[in-house]
Amino acid sequence: MSRGRKLKLGLFIQGAGHHVAGWRHPEAHSGSENFDLITQLAQKAEQAKLDMIFLADGLTTSAGSPPSVVARFEPITLLAALSTVTRRIGLAVTASTTYYDPFNLARLIASVDKLSDGRAAWNVVTTSTHEAALNFSAQDHLDHSLRYERAAEFVEVVKGLWDSWEQEPYIVNKETGEYIDKRKVHELNHKGKYFSVKGPLNVSQSPQGHPVIIQAGSSGPGQELAAQIGEVVFTAQQSYEDAQNFYSGLKGLLPKYGRPPEHVHILPGLFPVIGATEKEAREKYEQLQSFIDDSRAYDTLEERFEYDLRGYSLDDPVPDIPESSGRKSRPQLLMKLARDKGLTLRQLFREVAGARGHRIVVGTPIQLADHIQKWFEGYAADGFNIMPPYVPGGFDDFVEGVIPELQNRGLFRTDYEGSTLREHLGLPVPANRHSTVPTS
Amino acid sequence: MSRGRKLKLGLFIQGAGHHVAGWRHPEAHSGSENFDLITQLAQKAEQAKLDMIFLADGLTTSAGSPPSVVARFEPITLLAALSTVTRRIGLAVTASTTYYDPFNLARLIASVDKLSDGRAAWNVVTTSTHEAALNFSAQDHLDHSLRYERAAEFVEVVKGLWDSWEQEPYIVNKETGEYIDKRKVHELNHKGKYFSVKGPLNVSQSPQGHPVIIQAGSSGPGQELAAQIGEVVFTAQQSYEDAQNFYSGLKGLLPKYGRPPEHVHILPGLFPVIGATEKEAREKYEQLQSFIDDSRAYDTLEERFEYDLRGYSLDDPVPDIPESSGRKSRPQLLMKLARDKGLTLRQLFREVAGARGHRIVVGTPIQLADHIQKWFEGYAADGFNIMPPYVPGGFDDFVEGVIPELQNRGLFRTDYEGSTLREHLGLPVPANRHSTVPTS
Repeated sequence: MSRGRKLKLGLFIQGAGHHVAGWRHPEAHSGSENFDLITQLAQKAEQAKLDMIFLADGLTTSAGSPPSVVARFEPITLLAALSTVTRRIGLAVTASTTYYDPFNLARLIASVDKLSDGRAAWNVVTTSTHEAALNFSAQDHLDHSLRYERAAEFVEVVKGLWDSWEQEPYIVNKETGEYIDKRKVHELNHKGKYFSVKGPLNVSQSPQGHPVIIQAGSSGPGQELAAQIGEVVFTAQQSYEDAQNFYSGLKGLLPKYGRPPEHVHILPGLFPVIGATEKEAREKYEQLQSFIDDSRAYDTLEERFEYDLRGYSLDDPVPDIPESSGRKSRPQLLMKLARDKGLTLRQLFREVAGARGHRIVVGTPIQLADHIQKWFEGYAADGFNIMPPYVPGGFDDFVEGVIPELQNRGLFRTDYEGSTLREHLGLPVPANRHSTVPTS
Repeated sequence: MSRGRKLKLGLFIQGAGHHVAGWRHPEAHSGSENFDLITQLAQKAEQAKLDMIFLADGLTTSAGSPPSVVARFEPITLLAALSTVTRRIGLAVTASTTYYDPFNLARLIASVDKLSDGRAAWNVVTTSTHEAALNFSAQDHLDHSLRYERAAEFVEVVKGLWDSWEQEPYIVNKETGEYIDKRKVHELNHKGKYFSVKGPLNVSQSPQGHPVIIQAGSSGPGQELAAQIGEVVFTAQQSYEDAQNFYSGLKGLLPKYGRPPEHVHILPGLFPVIGATEKEAREKYEQLQSFIDDSRAYDTLEERFEYDLRGYSLDDPVPDIPESSGRKSRPQLLMKLARDKGLTLRQLFREVAGARGHRIVVGTPIQLADHIQKWFEGYAADGFNIMPPYVPGGFDDFVEGVIPELQNRGLFRTDYEGSTLREHLGLPVPANRHSTVPTS
């Protein structure tokens, strides 16, 4: 069926789970700033042989955020800590090209990659909320297209810095006093529109060469950047057909950048609600939805759309909402969902509060596996980023029910084949632009 | 003698040790990017009940750096990783106010403080080398006085952000749906010369309230900043008399800021070379010095003084070297040392290569303890930041020989009294500027 193509799976760890009120589930633990719980989730994901855990980020305590992520560990430091309590699983972290400096960020991520012996990934985002600018001494948030222009140059600089060091630079000969092979250390001397960076970086390469690059923008400029630099693409897709179109569209952009299709893995988010029977699963979903506090609807919708909807009743049909210069693709996806299903504002809020626009699948482990297999074999996805509604139970259900079923069907690995994230994902170690010295 | 005043000790972990050629010692291990060795050192320091481990930083791969720190883990991520393999010891990290943004840095350090349950400290530096500017898209490095002006505002913003959250903000009531007590979360709304930051931060407080602030500049503006914000002052002092003068001078500045003397601990660096006999210690030191490669002298001196001395022979006496706008106090200290001892450039380089201007003490464990006791009881120091010449043996000698002697003399603890770094150091939890809500 899939000519050796294997499903890729991530665990998206966030607060008390992805459902806005998942923390109110009787079995839910509070995941806010709770390192023991996060460790437990990461280790469970590793036992299940997932490709990676994935951490999002936010630069504000937005009123529209789920309460369990209003305060959180800064994700790069969290990932560094998780590198010591895991051994094989990939470690993906989100960081903004708009509010970091490329030298600092290149170092931070490379350092996690070294600490974990080659398991790090960087999810490149440009930050969508205007509010963030106010925490960074900026009058205005950069416009969408300029953010993507800056992001492209930022990534170019970061990758250049990651190439500062060729593999195996250490000599450490106590007799001769030679410590480093200086022929393997290179300046970058980048001079561009946004950045001038001399280099070299002061962290050497991990066994995977560069951290894996993830891209999560699904707008036009986002897809173009993904095709250029993304090795994993995280996306929100509601329907099989839309996902197939996105998949073939993005893979179709790759030849322009000389990249083969198997070097980019497209992973939609998947929000699973699992029960022993379909009825039990549906009841669990209804229970989660019953915990939602509708008084947060206006804040949440304003955060999503950057538009104040307080002039409307929550029971009005979703009106036309003008496009902001913040997020692009997600509001479009949500508007399409609202139109297709004829939603009211309250119903739209409840969709957003559930899975933030990601696909919700409610059912038995078999039904979940069927969904995953259909999308995977139909080239709507190369895998999924799993978003448990609450933790740890919502993820335990997936690991104990769905993973064995996927393994039985030959779709998912039963053990890791390698030790780096690039090895898990079947991605090559990037050729170093400077490598002229033969590796000893 | 000391009215309950107790010695404070840090372990300064750097590369393969602090001697430029310490890595060539037969017993030395290579500490570059070697997490297992760093873990071993941190755990040994914790077994010895030291107050903290201390990590420096550098933003370039300078030609004048010891070869074992040309590449290194980024220290904030390293500290986050170390938080999981230690339980009690403080974790201090250096970060630059010139090349970070206050919101990002406040988050990173607060996050390590949360991960470690209140054991983090931030060593505030302004970055002295011009070279760093070239990695950060800056044409010119900020002048010394402007760097300190920016640093003071930067620290004000960071401390303001750390006050965003009062203690115990979580309610997490599944019945009522209340997750956070919003009365305990505050905006900052800082608007200053360098920064505008709205807040709140999106990390809550650790049990110690704020990470401890360390300051390491010993110039005029550096001392002023230390008196204003420093809770630990790391300094280089060569002689007992100079150290006493520095100590009384700095403590004398504290009343101006309404701070009692016991809220600032002055810790000079101490580079110990230890043998069972004085003769053995001296031979060990001579052996270390014999490993120094004089061909690195010009690079090292240029890096220290930001001045090219290639016009002189290494056997010329140290000439007058003009002051740069980079480092201030360390070049002055080294020039004074050169004049006092009538050093040649080669001899000056060899002092710098050994301990970078910090006090070298060569002797038996008893002699080391005598030195420490004299400086401590004579109010030349509140303790020391220990800089082993090579690792792990150079630190093992200190832990196995000197620590028990200090404990026998009643100068140093035999167990931790508390669990946070503030508790180890006898520092109060800072009063939160917003705290009007009684803690539940």
